[in-house]
Amino acid sequence: MKEERDSELLWLTIREEVREFSEREPALASYYYANILSHPSLASALSFHLATRLGCDSVPEMTLSEVFTSALTDEPAILEAVVADIYAVYERDPACNHYVLPMLFFKGFQAVQAYRFAHWLWRKERRSLALFLQNRISTTLDVDIHPAAQLGKGIMIDHATGVVIGETARIGDNVSLLHGVTLGGVGTGHQVRHPQVGDGVLISVGAKLLGNITIGEGAKIAGGSLVVDDVPPHVTVAGVPAKIVGKPAHSVPSLDMDQGM
Amino acid sequence: MKEERDSELLWLTIREEVREFSEREPALASYYYANILSHPSLASALSFHLATRLGCDSVPEMTLSEVFTSALTDEPAILEAVVADIYAVYERDPACNHYVLPMLFFKGFQAVQAYRFAHWLWRKERRSLALFLQNRISTTLDVDIHPAAQLGKGIMIDHATGVVIGETARIGDNVSLLHGVTLGGVGTGHQVRHPQVGDGVLISVGAKLLGNITIGEGAKIAGGSLVVDDVPPHVTVAGVPAKIVGKPAHSVPSLDMDQGM
Amino acid sequence: MKEERDSELLWLTIREEVREFSEREPALASYYYANILSHPSLASALSFHLATRLGCDSVPEMTLSEVFTSALTDEPAILEAVVADIYAVYERDPACNHYVLPMLFFKGFQAVQAYRFAHWLWRKERRSLALFLQNRISTTLDVDIHPAAQLGKGIMIDHATGVVIGETARIGDNVSLLHGVTLGGVGTGHQVRHPQVGDGVLISVGAKLLGNITIGEGAKIAGGSLVVDDVPPHVTVAGVPAKIVGKPAHSVPSLDMDQGM
Amino acid sequence: MKEERDSELLWLTIREEVREFSEREPALASYYYANILSHPSLASALSFHLATRLGCDSVPEMTLSEVFTSALTDEPAILEAVVADIYAVYERDPACNHYVLPMLFFKGFQAVQAYRFAHWLWRKERRSLALFLQNRISTTLDVDIHPAAQLGKGIMIDHATGVVIGETARIGDNVSLLHGVTLGGVGTGHQVRHPQVGDGVLISVGAKLLGNITIGEGAKIAGGSLVVDDVPPHVTVAGVPAKIVGKPAHSVPSLDMDQGM
Amino acid sequence: MKEERDSELLWLTIREEVREFSEREPALASYYYANILSHPSLASALSFHLATRLGCDSVPEMTLSEVFTSALTDEPAILEAVVADIYAVYERDPACNHYVLPMLFFKGFQAVQAYRFAHWLWRKERRSLALFLQNRISTTLDVDIHPAAQLGKGIMIDHATGVVIGETARIGDNVSLLHGVTLGGVGTGHQVRHPQVGDGVLISVGAKLLGNITIGEGAKIAGGSLVVDDVPPHVTVAGVPAKIVGKPAHSVPSLDMDQGM
Amino acid sequence: MKEERDSELLWLTIREEVREFSEREPALASYYYANILSHPSLASALSFHLATRLGCDSVPEMTLSEVFTSALTDEPAILEAVVADIYAVYERDPACNHYVLPMLFFKGFQAVQAYRFAHWLWRKERRSLALFLQNRISTTLDVDIHPAAQLGKGIMIDHATGVVIGETARIGDNVSLLHGVTLGGVGTGHQVRHPQVGDGVLISVGAKLLGNITIGEGAKIAGGSLVVDDVPPHVTVAGVPAKIVGKPAHSVPSLDMDQGM
Repeated sequence: MKEERDSELLWLTIREEVREFSEREPALASYYYANILSHPSLASALSFHLATRLGCDSVPEMTLSEVFTSALTDEPAILEAVVADIYAVYERDPACNHYVLPMLFFKGFQAVQAYRFAHWLWRKERRSLALFLQNRISTTLDVDIHPAAQLGKGIMIDHATGVVIGETARIGDNVSLLHGVTLGGVGTGHQVRHPQVGDGVLISVGAKLLGNITIGEGAKIAGGSLVVDDVPPHVTVAGVPAKIVGKPAHSVPSLDMDQGM
Repeated sequence: MKEERDSELLWLTIREEVREFSEREPALASYYYANILSHPSLASALSFHLATRLGCDSVPEMTLSEVFTSALTDEPAILEAVVADIYAVYERDPACNHYVLPMLFFKGFQAVQAYRFAHWLWRKERRSLALFLQNRISTTLDVDIHPAAQLGKGIMIDHATGVVIGETARIGDNVSLLHGVTLGGVGTGHQVRHPQVGDGVLISVGAKLLGNITIGEGAKIAGGSLVVDDVPPHVTVAGVPAKIVGKPAHSVPSLDMDQGM
Repeated sequence: MKEERDSELLWLTIREEVREFSEREPALASYYYANILSHPSLASALSFHLATRLGCDSVPEMTLSEVFTSALTDEPAILEAVVADIYAVYERDPACNHYVLPMLFFKGFQAVQAYRFAHWLWRKERRSLALFLQNRISTTLDVDIHPAAQLGKGIMIDHATGVVIGETARIGDNVSLLHGVTLGGVGTGHQVRHPQVGDGVLISVGAKLLGNITIGEGAKIAGGSLVVDDVPPHVTVAGVPAKIVGKPAHSVPSLDMDQGM
Repeated sequence: MKEERDSELLWLTIREEVREFSEREPALASYYYANILSHPSLASALSFHLATRLGCDSVPEMTLSEVFTSALTDEPAILEAVVADIYAVYERDPACNHYVLPMLFFKGFQAVQAYRFAHWLWRKERRSLALFLQNRISTTLDVDIHPAAQLGKGIMIDHATGVVIGETARIGDNVSLLHGVTLGGVGTGHQVRHPQVGDGVLISVGAKLLGNITIGEGAKIAGGSLVVDDVPPHVTVAGVPAKIVGKPAHSVPSLDMDQGM
Repeated sequence: MKEERDSELLWLTIREEVREFSEREPALASYYYANILSHPSLASALSFHLATRLGCDSVPEMTLSEVFTSALTDEPAILEAVVADIYAVYERDPACNHYVLPMLFFKGFQAVQAYRFAHWLWRKERRSLALFLQNRISTTLDVDIHPAAQLGKGIMIDHATGVVIGETARIGDNVSLLHGVTLGGVGTGHQVRHPQVGDGVLISVGAKLLGNITIGEGAKIAGGSLVVDDVPPHVTVAGVPAKIVGKPAHSVPSLDMDQGM
Repeated sequence: MKEERDSELLWLTIREEVREFSEREPALASYYYANILSHPSLASALSFHLATRLGCDSVPEMTLSEVFTSALTDEPAILEAVVADIYAVYERDPACNHYVLPMLFFKGFQAVQAYRFAHWLWRKERRSLALFLQNRISTTLDVDIHPAAQLGKGIMIDHATGVVIGETARIGDNVSLLHGVTLGGVGTGHQVRHPQVGDGVLISVGAKLLGNITIGEGAKIAGGSLVVDDVPPHVTVAGVPAKIVGKPAHSVPSLDMDQGM
């Protein structure tokens, strides 16, 4: 599998897909050209596309595009995470039958990548630009991720509307979140006050996780649950408030997307 | 009642309403003229207005407007559904005291009609334009309906923010949904994996229905419920996970909008 | 504390903050100048900034800005409420460490202030412009507050996406709401059909309050709850449907933001 | 020659040209699709393209497009003139080697066709919209033609910047004008006070014709001339003020574009 | 005549005109409302309208509008000049049969008023904003007036495209210029190097006046002339280079607009 | 002098100038940052700024910026010409007292550099994009240079409105043109049919040069002249039609900008 994760191979596949789309739908031909085919690399295409999504009068597209390019150059791990996220969506979402779809059409994917840039700005002490970007993401993509939050790679946020991830939250690798999920804070202090989520966790639609709690590796949180206590690894919790109701069928529940209980 | 459902009569009523609005609020006079009064028919006004909502640099307003007009000409049933949806909102939402309000001001109504055009594109095999449109609807109206989903007529989605309706979902006629409702998928296969909702169902705010389950005709799903099993006709279910808690007072609960339990 | 609530002092502090931001981040220098530093007063800056958020082709920014300025002149209580709301966010949200952040970057704060202008228009019988504004707020900030609803001051709506507050709802002073909260209606009549919320209440993430119910002063509604009955003062309720589960630690739970149970 | 002037044949040729352009330049593929290939007729494409040129916040593109479509339907002679103008540019301008170029890229052609719509509005007594359009043409295309002026068909305005044609001016068929040409008024009365230009005249770059004077059929006005007196048919005039300096080599000097003296 | 020049009376007349236009042309009703009817004064309407013309991403409309309002407050003579210019156009241009036309539709009038604000900025030592504004005027209205130039009142620039007025030029009161007129510089030094134009002068279409020359009061410069020497008062000059060819029929030739020789 | 022409030194000087401007005028601080200070090189800043000027819905800013960057990389002579042009304007135009002004504020400079990119596209056989760009330049900057024309370096086009340079025109190095100048064609064939202009020529305001004529090195063409015959080196011509009237005081008249006769 390792080899397939190669950014260069992925980029060639995406170009192939888009060439075919482009021939079939002339109304989008220049859109595909401007966003994909005219670019020399995935990094260049991503910077361009996210900039068109998030640019505005106050911080124009080209300025954003240059910021994103700087981040990708400065920190190669960002692109690795981007690639892992594309594979994550492709493999977990049956409605995603082309590798290019997340980048062009899925709000959750776009919001996560834009967060990665805001997070980079935050660590570079350009905090007001990071907050500006957070607001742009929240306004245009309806996902509110604080730039100080820490997310791993292989992340999928499906449908995305209404997701909130707070300042001191931490999310491991290969985690799947559905729309309406909240990793919210408890209290008004400056200590860690948001959830710490382990690898491979599946958090189903509209679940609310509140406070400095630990969600163990491979756990599953059922839809609509309210979680205010630690969750052990590899269990399923459900309810308001949530209780342990079983064990996920899969050791990495984020992969099989079985949102049922 | 039949006669009142006539598209032509509705159009005359809407024009009458708007003429009065226009006199009272000069700041919106040209808005009303451009969106309603300058048009020869409801179909023309709808194409125009949705195009102004969803157009962007990549697919400009006028191109969308022509696509919508083509769809309405090609498939008269779309306009019938539009008319039924306007009456649905007018009759079920007490805050809606004019027939023109859904078209101009209600995100849920606009999202459903835009979905109807995306659905038409999907069936015409213009799938990437359909996906583009789905993304535009999700970004601007905060409602995510897969273009392959199947919706009946007389549909109301009230307030609308955060509604998600997946690829293999099916919704009957005269159904009311509130904001935050999810008809979500379970699993990663390509079979039917989303809910199948019968006629006259009321799905209250934030309810999550997951997987290939059947919601019987005239059922009511209480707010915040998590539904992962079939629901028989004419019962009320509630809770996380949802259980049967009674029967709706009305045989068609979508009409009386009694969201209580 | 009284003195600190002074609008003039707050304005000077905000300018001081922004001057420092401006020096550190040249990409935003003109943004800060245009939105804050070039203005003679908080009222002027607020009118300007909200107009840039909500203006569109149909009702341009400058027209909105003039409407907002008229409202602030006509009714000084609006500015008092604005000031109280800024303090509310600053004191209750640990991620808010500057007084200027709510105005420039927080969707919930922006939506509440824009509602205040829509509410003023509604009472001035400019109802179609009020509805237009409600739609603009819902579309751009993902918060749907009916212009006829009645909100007190010292209101915080954190993160904000998906909040719905219906036509006959009433909210007291110093109330905190999280994203995804609904104050929804029950039934189709024209009587009071939405919740009446007392002072100091905390309504946690995704809670749904439905119908003409009274939420007593200082009550706390846990995340994800479904509330369809009256809630006495100074109790905590939770669950679907919600039951009394205890008492808030703080007499004014909106202030300590303890969303746990 | 008659047959070639057929609008339908021209339209097929234009589509053929654009299909080839589109394949060679993907950055413009959707531009060509939206402006030409997606349209059923030359009339539809022209309405669309001019509307994108002249639309603005106050009178949006789609409203203009509908006005232009109405004019073309109401008065078929407009389309005849459009067709004649396309042939005029193609035959007289060696830099124009495709029939589609005038419509998409030449300001003079665009200004003349937009004037034809303003002229139609003027005669329909929609005078303030006609003046609005005149201002839009002058602002975006740098050509100022009063909507009451009368122009024939087979008109070419090459390069176009700075051309002014006054309220009571009259221009025959098959006339060529270069940029900087003025047909200006003398005096402040309401009688005819602008030039009356016969068929086949060539008015070279920067020539100024002032007052109610008659320019005879087939005359040539040399570049930079100031003409304040009648000019007989089939002579060449030059100078400030202009005098007869010879006879044009061609009986229809607008066709051979010999601007020399 | 004095009384008619009153700004307040003019404002009432303009409102009356616009109310009538507005009723006749609903497509422009909101345009008229936003630009004229919603304003309390001519000064307010002018600031608004010019800001919509000249605003851009870098310096947004509302920022410009505030600059213009400051100038009008700081220096009442600007408004006097505006009023005089409106009367000038109304009285001298037969195509101008309503007082509102110059402000909304005539590029020359708009350019002169915008120059007045740039000139104010220049004297306030905000030179780079003044140059920015000069560039915006030149780009959108095709008139290039250096902000350091000095213009009197009662100025009309008809049609306007291509007019250039250099840094050390000076123009008296009640002067009429046509499009294409240049008041250009000679040499590269920093002394006065542009024309000094007396009161009541008429400079006809495309005339070029170059260097530090004096144009005497009441002189007339014929169209297309090249003037490189002083011109005495009350004579007519014409030709390339220009020579005295007679005397104007009117003692103030700018008023009768007799561009003939 | 050589050393001062160094692109790197010029870039440092421009940054220094802009830093000072930026401190004095906060309304433009982000404009200066986005267009100059955030860029690593003159080439990068130029690509960015011209793209903001010429981008539109059909070919967005970022696409243009990438085309311009490709051209500058592919052909280093373009940047050399840009540098020479900046010095040309700075040294010849007394109103230009900072090196940054041409790039940000002078239409003539901007049009020439944009032509250089269109010319590069033309030679790369991307002709329809070159024509598209020519139209954008003509529409936004009012200068019409055919992409096939050939221009040297050290070119200044002052004020610029209305300049037209035809398809087979050729201009040497260190030439100065004023606004309204035409290098126009004669006839309808495909041979050379436009002027061939030698080094160091000054063509004054509104002069019209027509046909395949040769303008000798160091010649001066007086304002408003009509030139239809060859002009020998180092003479001054004037009139309609132009005749030899003397010799320029300077051997390179483009440098002293003495437009007089």
